[in-house]
Amino acid sequence: MKEYRKFEPPDRILLGPGPSNVHPRVLRAMSAPTIGHLDPDFLELMEEVQELLRWLFKTKNRLTIPVSATGSAGMECCFANVFERGEKVLIGVNGVFGKRMAETARKLGQIPVTMEKDWGEVFDPDVISAALKSEKDIAGVALVHAETSTGACQPLEEIGELCKKRGVIFLVDAVTSLGGIPVEVDKWNIDACYSGTQKCLSCPPGLSPVTFSEKALEKINSRSTEVESWYFDMSMIQKYWGEERVYHHTAPINMIYALHEALLILYEEGFDSLFARHKKNSEALLSGLSAIGIEPLVDETYRLPELNSVIIPESVDDKAVRSALLNDYDIEIGPGLGPLAGKIWRIGLMGQASSAKNVIYFLASLEQILKKMGKIPEAGKAVQAAEEVYCNT
Amino acid sequence: MKEYRKFEPPDRILLGPGPSNVHPRVLRAMSAPTIGHLDPDFLELMEEVQELLRWLFKTKNRLTIPVSATGSAGMECCFANVFERGEKVLIGVNGVFGKRMAETARKLGQIPVTMEKDWGEVFDPDVISAALKSEKDIAGVALVHAETSTGACQPLEEIGELCKKRGVIFLVDAVTSLGGIPVEVDKWNIDACYSGTQKCLSCPPGLSPVTFSEKALEKINSRSTEVESWYFDMSMIQKYWGEERVYHHTAPINMIYALHEALLILYEEGFDSLFARHKKNSEALLSGLSAIGIEPLVDETYRLPELNSVIIPESVDDKAVRSALLNDYDIEIGPGLGPLAGKIWRIGLMGQASSAKNVIYFLASLEQILKKMGKIPEAGKAVQAAEEVYCNT
Repeated sequence: MKEYRKFEPPDRILLGPGPSNVHPRVLRAMSAPTIGHLDPDFLELMEEVQELLRWLFKTKNRLTIPVSATGSAGMECCFANVFERGEKVLIGVNGVFGKRMAETARKLGQIPVTMEKDWGEVFDPDVISAALKSEKDIAGVALVHAETSTGACQPLEEIGELCKKRGVIFLVDAVTSLGGIPVEVDKWNIDACYSGTQKCLSCPPGLSPVTFSEKALEKINSRSTEVESWYFDMSMIQKYWGEERVYHHTAPINMIYALHEALLILYEEGFDSLFARHKKNSEALLSGLSAIGIEPLVDETYRLPELNSVIIPESVDDKAVRSALLNDYDIEIGPGLGPLAGKIWRIGLMGQASSAKNVIYFLASLEQILKKMGKIPEAGKAVQAAEEVYCNT
Repeated sequence: MKEYRKFEPPDRILLGPGPSNVHPRVLRAMSAPTIGHLDPDFLELMEEVQELLRWLFKTKNRLTIPVSATGSAGMECCFANVFERGEKVLIGVNGVFGKRMAETARKLGQIPVTMEKDWGEVFDPDVISAALKSEKDIAGVALVHAETSTGACQPLEEIGELCKKRGVIFLVDAVTSLGGIPVEVDKWNIDACYSGTQKCLSCPPGLSPVTFSEKALEKINSRSTEVESWYFDMSMIQKYWGEERVYHHTAPINMIYALHEALLILYEEGFDSLFARHKKNSEALLSGLSAIGIEPLVDETYRLPELNSVIIPESVDDKAVRSALLNDYDIEIGPGLGPLAGKIWRIGLMGQASSAKNVIYFLASLEQILKKMGKIPEAGKAVQAAEEVYCNT
């Protein structure tokens, strides 16, 4: 009989594209004893989770809940519910997650009409407007707010206005934006929006907060065909999260404890501090990197503070640096994906992980590695540049 | 600004249909710091989880993994992968979960051919054999091993043999059976099997262990259409769990810590003790209940030891008793569902919750409640009858 041992994870600093580091309060909340999914105490908790998610999404949407699976399941849930087989969806593809949207829609029998942009760039409202005019019978527009594969932030307000005027559904991926930069579901006329718990919420992966507008609900309720999924069918799930409390599937109890506590921590900090903190730490990071010749991929206007993609200098070995960071300094950063593989690093400063401590330690570690590799003459410049950003606050 | 407080769950004894009580070791393992889903340490953990799941399912199947969502998602995942739109699946319906299988298959565009049995009864292999002969082009047979809504155990070995002979897929729901009674995936020729973590594995809800035979993989690989789900598509997911380690979606890291520890606890106890313990505690429970006139629904041959459905005496108020158990004794038991609503109680003795301590405390509490309601003249008989079962071991 093989011997197994208790798993003891290493103590990593998670500065990749997610998961990010989880707050100890969240880990403690998650490990409280499990109770039943129809326990009166659990039903009360569900209500608080919904209230707090509405606060975070800036919405009054009744149907605002965590889907019982990770962010990509939230994507599938949104597409499967608000669109039907054979419907055309205009989808912006400028990274992995726009591509995934198109793939998901296609697998569900929908017709993705894709608009392409170079990875790292964003879509202009005029392009969307033109596409909506030229292409007949578009049922909705789907865009990624914070493209995790590139670090680009897609402005949404004007496009939401367009969708409202034309009466089409506006579906938004807010996996990496929620909690790191403003997400204004109601103000921006977003009809279906999904996120994940493992980015700026500083909660383990496993749930996907989603919200549906009244317009989305009307579309769901007037479908000519059923939702082609049992697990993701909102017509049933909303009865468990609504007043009826009809059992659908067993809710992931302890993950919901974790989400509740994670939301409380965000709520206690408040939007102003949250967004300012993410911005400041990104500035310090980029200032430090720039001091040693490492520059951001994305134009300043569209940069995500929580996911910093930077161009790897030509003479530097991508994998060797990431391995050294992980093995010698316990720091995880993300590699480039698709056309950006080997060309960029993705440095996440998400939620709890967005701290001066992490920025300074990361820069100091990177400088040591690059110095050892003979890529920079001396260490210290990057840390110094970052410290100056913090001093000038 | 509304004030929220940290959630403190009540200390429940979970004797319902699941979730069951989680072992403190599992809660502790789950609250270890989160690491990345491609961290070398996490990849090693994934391999151990697969090995331990193969041990538990009694299978050599390469593709044996936890789906990143609850048990019903495992159901959807199995149907979506091994069957295609338009294929006929013979499904046994003798409770909620057989019904859910038919519903899921239908929503995926498959053609469920249902066989019905009274709730609490099981299917005879001859009936399946006859159905396979009379109905043309059946692609597979789907049955629930442990029907959580009734407490009936469906024998599978002969039916697996039938499916093998006829070359059709055998799909099995082992949500409530896995870890409580033997599940012999290879020996019984099961091709696709799913379970849940929140029953006899004593782990929080959130994952669905699944396993696919080589025959199922051949069918998946020779599909004429793509799997109509992105999140559940095994052709992609197997590359993350296989040697390639290609990112699909962010794994629910901490839930997988929990599952690993839960599997270790089962592995340390071993099958003999696990199954004997579940059996003994069920015998003691039913003996105790019988002493106060409460009898089981299911025929002895097909009774599940981990889910005991018993008939509520006619004069007893179902809801009042369950409320008193929950509010005065912190004990959760399950109500009847569908045609059995108000007629039965479902008393789970699953995993860690299957203990003499829980049996005795439950019987003592129930006796107090029934005595107070004037339904039994004196308390003590049930406890005494159960104690005798334990003494005669």
